[in-house]
Amino acid sequence: MSKKSPVRLALIGAGRIGSSHAELVANHVPGATLVAVVDPTPNADRLAADLDVDVVERSADAVLARPDVDAVLITTPARTHTDLVVQAAAAGKHVFVEKPMAVTLADADRAIAAAKEAGVVLQVGFNRRFAPGWIAARSAIDAGRVGTPQLLRSVTRDPGPFSADPARIPPGTIFLETLIHDFDALCFLNPGARPKRVTAIADALIRPDAKADGHLDTAVVTVEFDNGAIAVAEANFSALYGYDVRGEVFGSGGMVTMGDSLTSNMTYYGPEGIGIDTARRDTDLLRSAYLGEFIAFVDAIRNGTQAQVTGEDARIALGIALAAIDSAATGQAVEVSA
Amino acid sequence: MSKKSPVRLALIGAGRIGSSHAELVANHVPGATLVAVVDPTPNADRLAADLDVDVVERSADAVLARPDVDAVLITTPARTHTDLVVQAAAAGKHVFVEKPMAVTLADADRAIAAAKEAGVVLQVGFNRRFAPGWIAARSAIDAGRVGTPQLLRSVTRDPGPFSADPARIPPGTIFLETLIHDFDALCFLNPGARPKRVTAIADALIRPDAKADGHLDTAVVTVEFDNGAIAVAEANFSALYGYDVRGEVFGSGGMVTMGDSLTSNMTYYGPEGIGIDTARRDTDLLRSAYLGEFIAFVDAIRNGTQAQVTGEDARIALGIALAAIDSAATGQAVEVSA
Amino acid sequence: MSKKSPVRLALIGAGRIGSSHAELVANHVPGATLVAVVDPTPNADRLAADLDVDVVERSADAVLARPDVDAVLITTPARTHTDLVVQAAAAGKHVFVEKPMAVTLADADRAIAAAKEAGVVLQVGFNRRFAPGWIAARSAIDAGRVGTPQLLRSVTRDPGPFSADPARIPPGTIFLETLIHDFDALCFLNPGARPKRVTAIADALIRPDAKADGHLDTAVVTVEFDNGAIAVAEANFSALYGYDVRGEVFGSGGMVTMGDSLTSNMTYYGPEGIGIDTARRDTDLLRSAYLGEFIAFVDAIRNGTQAQVTGEDARIALGIALAAIDSAATGQAVEVSA
Amino acid sequence: MSKKSPVRLALIGAGRIGSSHAELVANHVPGATLVAVVDPTPNADRLAADLDVDVVERSADAVLARPDVDAVLITTPARTHTDLVVQAAAAGKHVFVEKPMAVTLADADRAIAAAKEAGVVLQVGFNRRFAPGWIAARSAIDAGRVGTPQLLRSVTRDPGPFSADPARIPPGTIFLETLIHDFDALCFLNPGARPKRVTAIADALIRPDAKADGHLDTAVVTVEFDNGAIAVAEANFSALYGYDVRGEVFGSGGMVTMGDSLTSNMTYYGPEGIGIDTARRDTDLLRSAYLGEFIAFVDAIRNGTQAQVTGEDARIALGIALAAIDSAATGQAVEVSA
Repeated sequence: MSKKSPVRLALIGAGRIGSSHAELVANHVPGATLVAVVDPTPNADRLAADLDVDVVERSADAVLARPDVDAVLITTPARTHTDLVVQAAAAGKHVFVEKPMAVTLADADRAIAAAKEAGVVLQVGFNRRFAPGWIAARSAIDAGRVGTPQLLRSVTRDPGPFSADPARIPPGTIFLETLIHDFDALCFLNPGARPKRVTAIADALIRPDAKADGHLDTAVVTVEFDNGAIAVAEANFSALYGYDVRGEVFGSGGMVTMGDSLTSNMTYYGPEGIGIDTARRDTDLLRSAYLGEFIAFVDAIRNGTQAQVTGEDARIALGIALAAIDSAATGQAVEVSA
Repeated sequence: MSKKSPVRLALIGAGRIGSSHAELVANHVPGATLVAVVDPTPNADRLAADLDVDVVERSADAVLARPDVDAVLITTPARTHTDLVVQAAAAGKHVFVEKPMAVTLADADRAIAAAKEAGVVLQVGFNRRFAPGWIAARSAIDAGRVGTPQLLRSVTRDPGPFSADPARIPPGTIFLETLIHDFDALCFLNPGARPKRVTAIADALIRPDAKADGHLDTAVVTVEFDNGAIAVAEANFSALYGYDVRGEVFGSGGMVTMGDSLTSNMTYYGPEGIGIDTARRDTDLLRSAYLGEFIAFVDAIRNGTQAQVTGEDARIALGIALAAIDSAATGQAVEVSA
Repeated sequence: MSKKSPVRLALIGAGRIGSSHAELVANHVPGATLVAVVDPTPNADRLAADLDVDVVERSADAVLARPDVDAVLITTPARTHTDLVVQAAAAGKHVFVEKPMAVTLADADRAIAAAKEAGVVLQVGFNRRFAPGWIAARSAIDAGRVGTPQLLRSVTRDPGPFSADPARIPPGTIFLETLIHDFDALCFLNPGARPKRVTAIADALIRPDAKADGHLDTAVVTVEFDNGAIAVAEANFSALYGYDVRGEVFGSGGMVTMGDSLTSNMTYYGPEGIGIDTARRDTDLLRSAYLGEFIAFVDAIRNGTQAQVTGEDARIALGIALAAIDSAATGQAVEVSA
Repeated sequence: MSKKSPVRLALIGAGRIGSSHAELVANHVPGATLVAVVDPTPNADRLAADLDVDVVERSADAVLARPDVDAVLITTPARTHTDLVVQAAAAGKHVFVEKPMAVTLADADRAIAAAKEAGVVLQVGFNRRFAPGWIAARSAIDAGRVGTPQLLRSVTRDPGPFSADPARIPPGTIFLETLIHDFDALCFLNPGARPKRVTAIADALIRPDAKADGHLDTAVVTVEFDNGAIAVAEANFSALYGYDVRGEVFGSGGMVTMGDSLTSNMTYYGPEGIGIDTARRDTDLLRSAYLGEFIAFVDAIRNGTQAQVTGEDARIALGIALAAIDSAATGQAVEVSA
């Protein structure tokens, strides 16, 4: 790191994931300093106090107007992301936005255009790309050790038991907010290939009573790529054993697998057999991935380079998600929009 | 085992898998004795000599006429299975037939009826049901530890590099001969549920030049069950790292995973990192499963009980395979025939 | 296998391990037939009935006199082994004797001489040499992948909770009956090297109340070999998680590790985390090793070759055990007798 | 973290490990700031430039005199540690000192007394205590899941091939600098127990030519504790497969194992079988442990609490090391000095 001054970050959205991100950037990201927290609730005050942050605001406008803010982390509810990206870019702020960046292709285009016009870094929160296993897998693929990818798999299962109110989960969430990680991971692991066609099967197996309201909690999505590779993405909202994020790439030259649910390297051998602890929170399981994406974001800002996960990447993953929503509804394979 | 006399078995088909089966039943299955080998080629003579078997025949007829043969193992090419099952049953012989028992539902019905009428044991070679991991998984499921199955996975990848002549592989082989194992395994692991609808994507990724002739070497098949479970079966003909057979059942109460490619319990740590040997042959990887199915077959005969894998089981797996063939060809989801 | 007639075996000692061995040789060892069972208790009758064996005797004499017995399996209490080996050899029977073959070097010499004079095969029950992991490890060593062994480890822990009566366990048992496996395994894994010096630490940690009577249930033994390798053997009588048999060989070229407590390839992911079943019995954990040693024994008899585990091997392991007993008692390092 | 001002740290010793530590404290430890680097070589200047540190000094004196330094990290050669600890404490600076804190018990006492008198935090660099697996193991032990520890194991193997000049490695290094980690780890994992007696076997197996000069590169040390537990510590300077740090605690209630050589969660399946990458550097394998110890150090300073690894802990581990040196030389078991 050179003698450049630190990147001054404002957090917009002090919920669970925002608070975790804030702690990481405040304490563990070289060259970054957290200068402001925005949230309409008292979460903002608590978080700012915890992290020695002086500026607390109720709305994004106030913080985007500050000249002492270089960049923002947007961790508000999904449907607000695009407008905030556009607004922040217009204010000349670099933008890290949690996934999904947008929930329509038009919005994705709008966000991409805004960042481009403003000349700011726009990075999207696809954390798999910074998880050690996924980095290593991509390296192995780039090195030719896997050959041409033919069969891919990406799994995301949230820890259970599921206790949320289905009525408060917008339709499409399993595709737009959960599987979007897998869709991006599959693209990341099949470099150079484009998704072509999507077949999705989804159901409300955890809460069948909520299905009539459009709630879906279990899904299997098949993605066909233009290099022939066939990928399966799979999600469920209630893995009793903990947070489960895995990947597999099988190719003409071999296979890589990655991901597990371990929190530590300890194995316990007791009267019930062999036991290994699992992680209950993404912020534990993927801590180094989250940290890695913020370090990359700050580096891109300081070095004037492109983000490692771009708005275009987000648009591609969104294209798969939208096709999956369509396919799940119609029972037909759906072509991915260009 | 009681004082009953041994079950006298004849092998029909002394190819690679038949020879392996013969060695197991001749030497390692209590209560069984191999008394005849049938094959039109000199394989029969070699095998009989190796295993101290006195009777060698060129055709099934001769051996089915012998009163000193109680049961047959049919390991001839797939398309000959049904006729041999019917013929053997008619001759009053118990039948173990390698998968697939039949390649049409009518043939499956014919085989089932023949065995029923003759009152003989009819067992089909779905070896997964006798693999230790699969047995344990099913026990865990039966014990309620997995809850209701929601997401299942079954993988079969043959060891590579692929060196066969695609022209000698009948169309549909990946579904009827390879994935049929996975289809049966998925039914075994989702007890009580029936397959409802199938979506298949298949391609010739290993030998794209052979695709025009109907050759398919890579497939992903999604099976929806009537209890809501969504299953994925996956196959490929060229896993460079060895024979790969795995399974996963995720349910409302937890998950079981099973299968790996290990040949031994040894791990090697060398200059290239940590290395674990893999199995190159199904007869190594699944040896205990093969042995288990023959022990079960002989036990069923001696104890007058039903086979653990029945003609009806084979018919259900076949129904999935036929739907998958249809789906792969049409690009549409296909209902499984009753 | 050629047209030779089967090897006719008599079991001497129908206790737990004898019964397990009998079932294996009766049903799963090609070229072998179990023709007699000897035991002073009704165990003999029950076992013979289970396995369709016609001859039941109360004493070894009767069975050794039979011309229709080619070989014996000696599975009586340890202190009776040598006399039975000598007696069986004198009767011209091939001998498989459970470890320890002898508990004094003089007895070991006596057994070796008797077998030599009679020209019979003498094999000792060191099962590690037939366990898949150990076979693979030795192959890796022979192939030079480990380089020169420098640090070795062998662990044997019996499943707990410990419930035996310490008063019925002869002094020295942990060395002469349990660790003797590890001593032999260490020699097997350090081919060509000879044990030189032994340091043993042992205690009654499970039943400290029995220590005054000479009972020892936990031991760590260091063995220095003449090629510089330093080995640690470790035993305990009460592993709550199951039967635990492991090995490790570290050398100038790499490391091999082997052994685990798995009964199946299934992994269970439940609310408590990830769980793997363990084996509670040696006859489960080491089944293929037990089977392998009997197959090797019968092959040696039929082919007229030397046993794969000889009386000399047993004498070397015994030398280590005796030095360990001495060292544990004196607190000094003890040279291994030639 | 509260509004306290950051802890200002000076690094004394800018070698390999010092540079790694500096990067961690400069960039990844909340509440810390690196303000000075001390080293007689140009390493100091390079490191300071990399990390935006303004003050570079050639000797510790200069930096200890600065009022704007709150604490020091001592990463100089082992034999200089004690004097620097005493000097830094006398200057009122909190001290983090790499292991070993001292190489004689008198020096250990001197260091402890100096810190006590000055009222400064004194923490020793036993990183195992902060490695996730070891933390989890200790928690399991504290929770009673392991019962009373009976058999312990700690392994440290440096990555090979060994390329150092043995003549530049002081005698006793394998005990005082390598195994000292294991000795401390064993005490950490056997809480409340004290080491009683030590038996060490050591040799120059990697460089036998250097043995005459007192060089030892391979060692096995047995430590008996006053609660009956028997522990084995094992070290070697040339593990071809990478850095190898492992632990095992077996007790009356179960077992925990921890440690491996993984750098990532990726597994590669290729033509040679299954492969897993290993770590070649302690700073990779133990990165989170190193980070954890600095976070703990800074927290202790800010919160006025005791260090998590104290001078007394270092003295106990040193006592074992000195006994091991004695035992290796004499071939006798040696009592640990009080």
